[in-house]
Amino acid sequence: MRRGFDVGEFKARVKAAQRAMARHELAAILLTTEPEVRYFTGFQTRFWESPSRPWFVIIPQSGDPIAVIPSIGEALMRRTWVSDIRTWSAPDPIDDGVSLLTEALREIASGGKIGVPSGMESHLRMPLADFGRLQAAGLVFGDDAGIIAQLRAVKTEAEIEKIAKACSIAGRAFDRVGEVARQGAKLDSVFRGFQGLLLEEGADWVPYLAGGAGPTGYSDVISPAGPQPLAMGDVLMLDTGAVWDGYFCDFDRNFSIGVPARRSAASWSQLLEATLAGFEAAKPGAEAADVWRAMASVVGTGETAGRLGHGLGMQLTEGLSLTARDHTVLEAGMVITLEPGIETGDGMMLVHEENIVIREGGAQILSPWASGAMPVL
Amino acid sequence: MRRGFDVGEFKARVKAAQRAMARHELAAILLTTEPEVRYFTGFQTRFWESPSRPWFVIIPQSGDPIAVIPSIGEALMRRTWVSDIRTWSAPDPIDDGVSLLTEALREIASGGKIGVPSGMESHLRMPLADFGRLQAAGLVFGDDAGIIAQLRAVKTEAEIEKIAKACSIAGRAFDRVGEVARQGAKLDSVFRGFQGLLLEEGADWVPYLAGGAGPTGYSDVISPAGPQPLAMGDVLMLDTGAVWDGYFCDFDRNFSIGVPARRSAASWSQLLEATLAGFEAAKPGAEAADVWRAMASVVGTGETAGRLGHGLGMQLTEGLSLTARDHTVLEAGMVITLEPGIETGDGMMLVHEENIVIREGGAQILSPWASGAMPVL
Repeated sequence: MRRGFDVGEFKARVKAAQRAMARHELAAILLTTEPEVRYFTGFQTRFWESPSRPWFVIIPQSGDPIAVIPSIGEALMRRTWVSDIRTWSAPDPIDDGVSLLTEALREIASGGKIGVPSGMESHLRMPLADFGRLQAAGLVFGDDAGIIAQLRAVKTEAEIEKIAKACSIAGRAFDRVGEVARQGAKLDSVFRGFQGLLLEEGADWVPYLAGGAGPTGYSDVISPAGPQPLAMGDVLMLDTGAVWDGYFCDFDRNFSIGVPARRSAASWSQLLEATLAGFEAAKPGAEAADVWRAMASVVGTGETAGRLGHGLGMQLTEGLSLTARDHTVLEAGMVITLEPGIETGDGMMLVHEENIVIREGGAQILSPWASGAMPVL
Repeated sequence: MRRGFDVGEFKARVKAAQRAMARHELAAILLTTEPEVRYFTGFQTRFWESPSRPWFVIIPQSGDPIAVIPSIGEALMRRTWVSDIRTWSAPDPIDDGVSLLTEALREIASGGKIGVPSGMESHLRMPLADFGRLQAAGLVFGDDAGIIAQLRAVKTEAEIEKIAKACSIAGRAFDRVGEVARQGAKLDSVFRGFQGLLLEEGADWVPYLAGGAGPTGYSDVISPAGPQPLAMGDVLMLDTGAVWDGYFCDFDRNFSIGVPARRSAASWSQLLEATLAGFEAAKPGAEAADVWRAMASVVGTGETAGRLGHGLGMQLTEGLSLTARDHTVLEAGMVITLEPGIETGDGMMLVHEENIVIREGGAQILSPWASGAMPVL
């Protein structure tokens, strides 16, 4: 499968943003984070792992994006479709791109309001003191009215293909878990081995792996692995975020070390049933809360418990949440996870997760759908 | 080697912050990013990969830290030394922890100034609109006076041991590069294979890998790998950020596919010489700029070119920069990289990188020091 996107796709994203900007009277939008910059430019590098340098892209109300970036990124940005690239030698303790950015924003926004993503999940990836300097220079900032988040929530076919590819890579790695996990294997070495399997199956990298193991499940789904060995009767869960060409899958698999306990097997069946109920509810026009309700009614989740799924794409989690209070209306092209959890007693739980895309007629699976009994290792 | 830190170490970090806070008249410091939260609490999870939820830790001017976090993190935070843990069910589209945080900050800061890291490399990891709500509630924020960055710059022995362990893991993986890289191997498969080697040698995960390959070097050091095959005479560079227990190594190795060209071999020797010059200059009392100058004079780098090294620790890059304009004074306990680059013509370059810790008498190596001729694959 081809990497990257046609230039036409980036231009369409910019045009869609600009139509919304005109409605909201924004002269420009200022972007500072990795997915936002990549969404409009195609600039893809793991160098964002380094917090030392800020990166800026400006979407003007008309015309092409302008990149205001550290010179270390110029060669790579020149390979994208962006032609207006302005650089400074970063990090500069006196003026780390602030003057260059001020000049560009003045030229492009000419006194108008500059939108900055400010809603849920967003953050401004630049020093607060430097943002204060932009404001002190007379630039006027406001919320981006959710424009960027709304655009990113609906995926193109090219984006969906990349997510599907990440899902199939992880699916093949999950099929091989028996190579690295068995009774007596330490959980941290299972985590290492599983990351290796994901890479062997074609993941570019593995930004996320969580999981747990225990006789009746696990106490949370975000802890790092310790050296405890897998014991007969344990349920092992692995949940990954593997990436292909900048797009994530995010689903998990549960495995039983030996024949599962009756309670675990029953909980597992309920989780599969809940996932299927979520799948059937996930149609254009339904609310995120409707999909939540379909799953919650099967597993008995209360309204204040955690979410049972979320949007997925350039980030491990993005966009809507499957909770009782999220009334986002599903549209064709949205990619989401279905992630029901069930309490198994003593603070333990089991969680199952699959990835789907919303289509005109209903949902379509992206991760290889689990069915039948819990796989035994 | 044991994971984590003694509680005494976290308490010492808090006390040191509080002494500085008293000097700067800060009633509290509000922390929102992964390394800042982990530095004071020990809270370690890859779940930060998900942007959906904000996390807050408050350091009061006296007393222990307070965690104001999503309930999904409660079980893991309870395993740290923090006892005052306040949670909400996130993500909440109406009030995503803002009321809970406002209440906690009012109680702890009682009208005093609340410091927020605002200088170079920092960012505020929460929605700007929510930060505005805190300000509108009457809370008074200001710069943290660089307190957090200065504290983190000087490592304890326990921290240095973890970085050294990450370095030795990567050193063993570099020794095995011949298993995944040879003439005809595609660069992207080399990247996958090398990440697998890092995991096999004991890395918890591999947040960063960059590199390049070409007959006279590479055009930049941040690009992702493409499918081009390694050719006889190419120089291959791999630069990793592998992590053990939350601490990074960051060094690279260059390899020649077949016997290196005379030009490459000569550039390589100059890079080794520059690194050694940097090593000798890296003593307590010297400035970052002095170390830069020692290396720049060997490789002929100008003042506006990129930096030749940087601080290292809980992040791939943190703290000082080895540039002409960074006058940070080196102290015992600082861990830095020495990263000279040299132009080889036609926009190509070679870059070499090692990791060291500043000691009372001078520098001590952490990465297995390269010497002699460039290794041939």
